[in-house]
Amino acid sequence: MSKVIEPGTNEITTTGQVGRSVPRLESKAKVTGRAEYIHNLELPGMLHAKVVRSTVAHARIRRIDVSAAKEMPGVYDVITAEDVLKLIPDPYYGPAFHDQPILAIGKVRHVGEPVAVVLASDVHTADRATDLVEVEYEDMEPVFHEVESAGTETAIVHDVIRPAGTFADLKTLKPRTKTNIAMEYHLRSGDVNAAFANADHVFEHTFRSQQVNHLPLEPIVTVAEVTDRGNLLIHTASQSPSFVRIEVARLLGWPENRVRVRTAYLGGGFGAKLYIKLEALVSVLALLTGRPVKLSLTMEEQFYTITRHAATVHIKTGVTKDGRILGRHVTTWWNGGAYADIGPRVTQKSGFTAAGPYDIDAVSLDSYAVYTNLPPAGALRGFGIPQLVWAYESQTDIIARELGLDPLDFRRKNLLTNGRPHATGTVLVDAGTTEVLTELERLMDWHGPFEHGTGPIRRGRGIAIGIKAAVSPTTSVAFVNIYSDGSCGLYCGTVDMGQGSDTAMAQIAADVLGLAAEDVRVIHADTDVTPYDMATLGSRSTFHMGNAVRLAAEDAKTKAVEMCAKQTGLATASLRVENGQVVTPDGQAFTYGAILSKQYGMQAGNIMGVGSFVPDYEKPSSENGKSENITPFWMVGGTGVEVEVDIETGKIAITRLVTVGDAGKALNPGIVKRQLSGASIMQMGFTLFEEMAFDEGQVVNASLADYKIPGFWDVPEQNDVQIVEVPHKNGPFGAKGIGETGSLALSPAVANALQDAIGVRIYETPLTPERVLRALRAEQGNEWEED
Amino acid sequence: MSKVIEPGTNEITTTGQVGRSVPRLESKAKVTGRAEYIHNLELPGMLHAKVVRSTVAHARIRRIDVSAAKEMPGVYDVITAEDVLKLIPDPYYGPAFHDQPILAIGKVRHVGEPVAVVLASDVHTADRATDLVEVEYEDMEPVFHEVESAGTETAIVHDVIRPAGTFADLKTLKPRTKTNIAMEYHLRSGDVNAAFANADHVFEHTFRSQQVNHLPLEPIVTVAEVTDRGNLLIHTASQSPSFVRIEVARLLGWPENRVRVRTAYLGGGFGAKLYIKLEALVSVLALLTGRPVKLSLTMEEQFYTITRHAATVHIKTGVTKDGRILGRHVTTWWNGGAYADIGPRVTQKSGFTAAGPYDIDAVSLDSYAVYTNLPPAGALRGFGIPQLVWAYESQTDIIARELGLDPLDFRRKNLLTNGRPHATGTVLVDAGTTEVLTELERLMDWHGPFEHGTGPIRRGRGIAIGIKAAVSPTTSVAFVNIYSDGSCGLYCGTVDMGQGSDTAMAQIAADVLGLAAEDVRVIHADTDVTPYDMATLGSRSTFHMGNAVRLAAEDAKTKAVEMCAKQTGLATASLRVENGQVVTPDGQAFTYGAILSKQYGMQAGNIMGVGSFVPDYEKPSSENGKSENITPFWMVGGTGVEVEVDIETGKIAITRLVTVGDAGKALNPGIVKRQLSGASIMQMGFTLFEEMAFDEGQVVNASLADYKIPGFWDVPEQNDVQIVEVPHKNGPFGAKGIGETGSLALSPAVANALQDAIGVRIYETPLTPERVLRALRAEQGNEWEED
Repeated sequence: MSKVIEPGTNEITTTGQVGRSVPRLESKAKVTGRAEYIHNLELPGMLHAKVVRSTVAHARIRRIDVSAAKEMPGVYDVITAEDVLKLIPDPYYGPAFHDQPILAIGKVRHVGEPVAVVLASDVHTADRATDLVEVEYEDMEPVFHEVESAGTETAIVHDVIRPAGTFADLKTLKPRTKTNIAMEYHLRSGDVNAAFANADHVFEHTFRSQQVNHLPLEPIVTVAEVTDRGNLLIHTASQSPSFVRIEVARLLGWPENRVRVRTAYLGGGFGAKLYIKLEALVSVLALLTGRPVKLSLTMEEQFYTITRHAATVHIKTGVTKDGRILGRHVTTWWNGGAYADIGPRVTQKSGFTAAGPYDIDAVSLDSYAVYTNLPPAGALRGFGIPQLVWAYESQTDIIARELGLDPLDFRRKNLLTNGRPHATGTVLVDAGTTEVLTELERLMDWHGPFEHGTGPIRRGRGIAIGIKAAVSPTTSVAFVNIYSDGSCGLYCGTVDMGQGSDTAMAQIAADVLGLAAEDVRVIHADTDVTPYDMATLGSRSTFHMGNAVRLAAEDAKTKAVEMCAKQTGLATASLRVENGQVVTPDGQAFTYGAILSKQYGMQAGNIMGVGSFVPDYEKPSSENGKSENITPFWMVGGTGVEVEVDIETGKIAITRLVTVGDAGKALNPGIVKRQLSGASIMQMGFTLFEEMAFDEGQVVNASLADYKIPGFWDVPEQNDVQIVEVPHKNGPFGAKGIGETGSLALSPAVANALQDAIGVRIYETPLTPERVLRALRAEQGNEWEED
Repeated sequence: MSKVIEPGTNEITTTGQVGRSVPRLESKAKVTGRAEYIHNLELPGMLHAKVVRSTVAHARIRRIDVSAAKEMPGVYDVITAEDVLKLIPDPYYGPAFHDQPILAIGKVRHVGEPVAVVLASDVHTADRATDLVEVEYEDMEPVFHEVESAGTETAIVHDVIRPAGTFADLKTLKPRTKTNIAMEYHLRSGDVNAAFANADHVFEHTFRSQQVNHLPLEPIVTVAEVTDRGNLLIHTASQSPSFVRIEVARLLGWPENRVRVRTAYLGGGFGAKLYIKLEALVSVLALLTGRPVKLSLTMEEQFYTITRHAATVHIKTGVTKDGRILGRHVTTWWNGGAYADIGPRVTQKSGFTAAGPYDIDAVSLDSYAVYTNLPPAGALRGFGIPQLVWAYESQTDIIARELGLDPLDFRRKNLLTNGRPHATGTVLVDAGTTEVLTELERLMDWHGPFEHGTGPIRRGRGIAIGIKAAVSPTTSVAFVNIYSDGSCGLYCGTVDMGQGSDTAMAQIAADVLGLAAEDVRVIHADTDVTPYDMATLGSRSTFHMGNAVRLAAEDAKTKAVEMCAKQTGLATASLRVENGQVVTPDGQAFTYGAILSKQYGMQAGNIMGVGSFVPDYEKPSSENGKSENITPFWMVGGTGVEVEVDIETGKIAITRLVTVGDAGKALNPGIVKRQLSGASIMQMGFTLFEEMAFDEGQVVNASLADYKIPGFWDVPEQNDVQIVEVPHKNGPFGAKGIGETGSLALSPAVANALQDAIGVRIYETPLTPERVLRALRAEQGNEWEED
């Protein structure tokens, strides 16, 4: 860790709560093991569910025989789509498209797809009984690779693709048939062909990222129960309780107020616990049985439930010989798996940044969401951006090397800076592209000496930077409720899944109200209690919910001041708030509690502040994909690495990791640094060793024994994290999201360092020793057989 | 049941939800046994508590030996005041005075007082272990009767009486020593001595009401647990969750936001579940053990926990020979038992109505809250008023008979009517005194023929009316939250304990918003969720919370209209709300959901309406007890009965019961009628047979086998209920409280009918066969020995 940005180094006014590294409010609950997780929830009379999953990638279901399973002692019932259809005539869900059945109907589209569910009094009985459910399949032709799938006419995953989801723009899309392209996004800005014609050099490469898993250590889990008044109460480890409520209500044809969705702490999310995962299924099970039902996935099942998009990115760039990028065309194929989940949103919302943080006159982008017969892919810490940065920042280095330019100088020369329009037409505002690059330069001592070594261990270094647009338009609402003694409750639906949002939100409310963050009680997401929030995703909470919380606290403060003004007969404008007290010009000070007691004649009442935030937004033109206001803020992250490569084993060791992120304003520098670092380490796993290995759609390494994630020994000894603060004019106290920033640029930085060390270029992650060795041999004209 | 008052018969504008007999929203939950009660709550790892209670009425505690109990297998711990004091240095609680220890400290003041608590893994073990706790007492002189106690100088219950509670006015009282009079209230209006001097006749009588029990069929129960963040979560069958939160926080020295108090449905309340009952004790037990703890009283224990005040009322009235009341002096002694609970409030808030609903120039009232060595007395359906009406309406009949006037005509001649000042100086407004009396006259066919009979069964009839002021000042706050699809949640802390408040409040919100009451979801009281409400007591909810709900719904509606106005560019004033839609002048209609979707670009957001209500109030003068604004509304109830008295057994059978109540406006006529009827039947039990029988402070009939409450066979065959509607200018849709109205006048109506039937007057309730026979023999000059 390097220098801490002290509060007050920019012009933002705070009362000292914002900018302070408040220890996480839940620390004690977590270290004492008392923190609430849905995983631990037990309800009286609860049934345990186990899912019978498809063993084939693409097939018609001929017959499901549940009789043997039903007869097993301890089994309560076995549920198939037939039962689901009795309750819900159209049981398809999904955030972008309604394409995913609660249980497979007539067909399975990926290995691991839920086909039936066994309900039993205990989980072990349920598990054993799943083996007794016999499913007969009639195989269909599967397709697995995104580029192949985009072109096939025979292996069609969905007969009809019916875009219909929560998002107004997706609802208007026309149904498609005979294609696996679920959705596409195209951007045309300037004349890219002319640019290529005018260029001194045109570079063309294809990069690929593999499918990986989120692997939250608290597996995906949902408990549902029917309440006394016949409504649903869903306890779920979800990043998007408001969405779950809306979607389950839609499926059942109920009003929202009959569905209550609550969460607790999450043991990690990373995008795995978004939208509907188990909630629709478990709700149906509870309604069918009238009993509380719990379904908790195993680690293995998580691999079949949601993944990160594998992506193929073809990138063509025209440059002048002195290193000016004139034009760029990028085509991206996103491997969405069998169901769209949020893939179409990734395609569109991330797709438009595919040309990178560069100031390029002519840009042409094509982005395709493609169905395949793999487990569904969704959002995973970066919403597709790391896959794009992997491509463009690998190519950036290739070009610089080819042109004989310093990679950092080449980047700086082409950098998109504030005030300049991005390819979409949206002008860059308050984005620290320059600052992040400069910090990388400084921290890496980039122009200083560097020893590459000559023995079996070669050393190299590399950098990369990435840019991400925040998903838009989305809404957050917050309440700040001051209780009768003046103590305060903060009601916001942001889910604390380890990122420290409870603490950050408490800091914002406390700063406005003049209280200590530690004294603000944060009420966890519960749709009966906390107001609407789109979801905890895409690093949006600090900016969106932060603004809503700030506005709610301001509203409460204003009401308290107005109350006090009436009580004292003084003008509202003459009163100020200091240390949680309303202070009069002559120095009298009234706590919120005192104001309430005066108002109601006894310790009584509430002051309710409401804040609601939705940023301005202009949707992309259907003609050219452009928009002058496509994102509320830009995230900028840069990574520098120093590596040691063992040329005998191909193993890459990251000896120094430098993560630089623009936080706008670090509300809690300690938490921001740990977020940057956590994202960086996670991305390191995806870069060096994590990869879901498939055999005909079957995941052959679906366990933590076979699928390695970074452990403590994988963390580089030198792990430097640097916050850059370019205050955002619309951010709460200048802040913006940071949760994904650390993940953006790591992969290409490592590949760039690898090339720096041993002179080989790898175009596909992960950068395994095998790939390194193979590339090395190829470079040495000693190519091995592709496996 | 007689005629239903149809909605729209007064000038109040409604959309048809108010005034409709909406079936109770929870009916299905209750008849299917799914309704949630705290009594049924089980938590993992929960300990069960049993209380060791004092066996003596007044004593010093010499020694408590818990060693044998602690050694019993299954016993987790035994807790005494010593342990409590480690956590709370000053562990005394109470709504009016802080006089009641969580566990007895050094002294016990009534039989049944909690001395120690056994905690065990199951309730039976805990129960058995209580027998092993040895307590050694040193007896002190006890006092039981309120009049005796008010005069004693030797049997002093509290060494020092320290008024200090929630209520600002009580906090300013001076400490008292060497007296059992906890508090007194005096009213002086006009020259009462001159009035007596000028009167043709002066009547002087003393009436007494016995101690009775609330006996909710769901016994008083509390579960407390320490949450993951070290705060308290109290699940309790309470009528006053906001008070519990404030008081437990005060005891612990915590801010309110660390204490969460929630309720479910209550299986009856009647005043037994107000303020702190078990909550402080169970909270301490949870904090001491770190485990969830449940304490559920037995029926027997309820008799030792809270009771209704026995009261002695001395009433002296001067009248002219033609039946004009010139002056009245009333002295009331309230038997408060060993701890004040809300007794001082009863003394003061009910005390001032002791002269009845009559227009009397000179009134002098003295009201004394008196400690005795009996179980504490609190509020029970009427807040002391039935005890006062028992006195003044018995005497009203006596006077009428003595003057040879018709009792109904005599009442009408002296009736306090709207526009005339009550003894306090507060002018009567929108109170149906005349209307109630006139309805009684009509329904009883009062001036028609009536056959008294001549055989062993004699028939008589009687009427009485009573007036009650609502407790003031008190606050209610409500939220109306419109969710993203336009469905609605109503957040109010009013506790539905069988009175149908969920339904009534939903009707108010629905009426304002143009929805159906059945579609409004009512969120139950939970201090983390629902806003402040003083308590569900004293028939205040319809008026206070009803107003808060109406205001909250109006606020939400206004916000929706404003949102729509911005969206359409139309003037707010041009828009109207119809059937849950905002309608433009040209007939376009937008649902709340459509407005939200337009606002946020997707199904998202909330419209949050906040309503807060506190009526105007002027506190009584410390000089003469008067106030020009002492109550937000007056309740008026009248009862007529026809009885058959068996002169051989003394048994009274009520053959016809007519209950008339002024509802202002019946929000739900069906519920209002059942409330009036329920209160009337409950009061019938207190009038005819319910009585806590004491032997040296020990309740000798503390079980439902020995203490009879009314059953279905006790309900009179003719049970007529009549709503009178005198719309209250400040009530929501003209409505006011009705929960206690049916209880006010029944007791004297029966005594008056008894006299009508057999010519004897009884001055003390209950009117048991023994008392009737004894009075009959006395009347016949054939008196029995007093027992």
